[in-house]
Amino acid sequence: MNAPIGSLADAMVLPQPYLLFLGDTTEPSFAKTAFGLADWAADRCVGEMGVAGCTVTTGLPRLSPAEAYAAGARSLVIGVANQGGVIGDNWVAALTGAMEAGLDIVSGLHVRLASVPALAEAARRTGRRLIDVRTPPPDIPVGTGRKRSGKRLLTVGTDCALGKKYTALALHRAFLDRGLDADFRATGQTGIMIAGGGIPMDAVVSDFEAGAAEILSPDAAPGHWDVIEGQGSLFNPAYAAVSLGLLHGSQPDVFVVCHDPSRKVILGLEDFVLPTIEEVIDLTIRLGSRTNPAIRCGGVSLNTSSMGAGEAEALLGAESRRLGLPVADPIRGGDAFAALVDSCLA
Amino acid sequence: MNAPIGSLADAMVLPQPYLLFLGDTTEPSFAKTAFGLADWAADRCVGEMGVAGCTVTTGLPRLSPAEAYAAGARSLVIGVANQGGVIGDNWVAALTGAMEAGLDIVSGLHVRLASVPALAEAARRTGRRLIDVRTPPPDIPVGTGRKRSGKRLLTVGTDCALGKKYTALALHRAFLDRGLDADFRATGQTGIMIAGGGIPMDAVVSDFEAGAAEILSPDAAPGHWDVIEGQGSLFNPAYAAVSLGLLHGSQPDVFVVCHDPSRKVILGLEDFVLPTIEEVIDLTIRLGSRTNPAIRCGGVSLNTSSMGAGEAEALLGAESRRLGLPVADPIRGGDAFAALVDSCLA
Repeated sequence: MNAPIGSLADAMVLPQPYLLFLGDTTEPSFAKTAFGLADWAADRCVGEMGVAGCTVTTGLPRLSPAEAYAAGARSLVIGVANQGGVIGDNWVAALTGAMEAGLDIVSGLHVRLASVPALAEAARRTGRRLIDVRTPPPDIPVGTGRKRSGKRLLTVGTDCALGKKYTALALHRAFLDRGLDADFRATGQTGIMIAGGGIPMDAVVSDFEAGAAEILSPDAAPGHWDVIEGQGSLFNPAYAAVSLGLLHGSQPDVFVVCHDPSRKVILGLEDFVLPTIEEVIDLTIRLGSRTNPAIRCGGVSLNTSSMGAGEAEALLGAESRRLGLPVADPIRGGDAFAALVDSCLA
Repeated sequence: MNAPIGSLADAMVLPQPYLLFLGDTTEPSFAKTAFGLADWAADRCVGEMGVAGCTVTTGLPRLSPAEAYAAGARSLVIGVANQGGVIGDNWVAALTGAMEAGLDIVSGLHVRLASVPALAEAARRTGRRLIDVRTPPPDIPVGTGRKRSGKRLLTVGTDCALGKKYTALALHRAFLDRGLDADFRATGQTGIMIAGGGIPMDAVVSDFEAGAAEILSPDAAPGHWDVIEGQGSLFNPAYAAVSLGLLHGSQPDVFVVCHDPSRKVILGLEDFVLPTIEEVIDLTIRLGSRTNPAIRCGGVSLNTSSMGAGEAEALLGAESRRLGLPVADPIRGGDAFAALVDSCLA
């Protein structure tokens, strides 16, 4: 688990280990959160449970809430989303039973847990907590721009949903593998569950966006790295405000541009052409230098999941030569990814 | 009063005319809101009232709530802020009496009106509304970047609190004086009270910031102008997220840069040098062109309130020649301001 986040720590530190809840899901893509936790927080997941009809599995042991509690679990995490992002009626008995077994409930769904009367009542009766990770902590201060100690890396993107969280997690793991002192700083609901804490930056009131990013990566030892999960894109006409507040408040020393070469337009906004990687580098340096004049680009992370190995390797090499920067796909790893890590730490 | 704002209109249309409430204020600078309303919404202010100890006046008639109601008033606006921005204990009886006389209460203070138990109780008893203009309307959509009909002007700034609201109001009035169809679109609490509606952009959740700006200036007739009050600055390390979301969502055809030549550093953040006017023009065009490729700078509004008339005139002329753009102080008006209006409409 990460170090506490200043005085807001208590509000955003999740009870761990987790029991992963899969609901009645039959479609693996709806269980992305559970798979992400099984991949990136396996040491803090004791097992999984579903209700009647569930056919997906993370591969973790199937446990009842009581068995999970006995194995150390302290919360049940809703690891699935149905269409609409609501609490299924057929989930309520399982969630209530988990509270009776001593587990808090953690959710990243849009609907608030306490808005389901049966869950609110069970929480009162059992004394358990209902934790919505989409809800920011209270009392976030406005930003100050004050330079903080320690080092910071931020992942940025040509758009939303193309690998900024995954890239940050992979870089964080690589930094730890090299013996560095580093924290992954989460800014979205899945990242927050993986990290065990963080701030859902898209849910913060605009006036406090940069301030939230400032408290997310507090002063640290000179050799310490915060690897910060990016959000949105400076070029996304819906979400650029989130990206700029996060950039200013994070004051990164290094950023990595995340891009999906198969994407040509902004997700869901087809009139908006995707920016080039060079445009993202240029604008990120220009805007980021307001709070860290030494900001630099460490390299590029390409999501080559739609390509075969040979095609991907050729593209990574060609893009690296074209841009004069390390270009890697963290999922493929290899020498290219090692070069990206080297460049970030240089 | 402005045209309704899409389907959110009901949430943000204030009951008018107003009775201005001055509390027990003795310091005119704490009554800025009342003075702003008396200046810019005089036709919708029937009078003023204070409580024991009040020594400031807007020059409007002193009326009791019953007299104000008889004169047409439908709300009492709290036109003052004490230190801390709270409801004075010695205000409560007057505010309760206003509700009994048939007036809703409108406030731009940080504290929520309904958090004062006596006011909440009186509102329930009398059926009157407690309206906090710092609270955004519910159900704001995310942005789409879709091009809207009609024309838009946005005021931007080298920093906060140097004349963006005043400049937008003066340009709006000048547009009306020239017979144009135009609305002032308010983005902060005083502006919202003046306009009788609007959205407090700094209080909107970041993910919805651009979307809020989009619904604030909806589709309009081709010759119609929305004159939009700017917020913050793209160069302010605390508030740039607000400014960028407002810029993207407003998709302005024209912007006017507001600047105070006596200010050298960001207000309250002395380590941050104020950007130059040219830097603001350049960055606003670069970022604004994402949602309106035809964006252009109409000119500059200088706040010369700290200068004598001769010194101010010389500076306006020199800056205009240096920048190759109209430069005016809207408070001084004159030929320079007329040239700025011409340029915006060109």
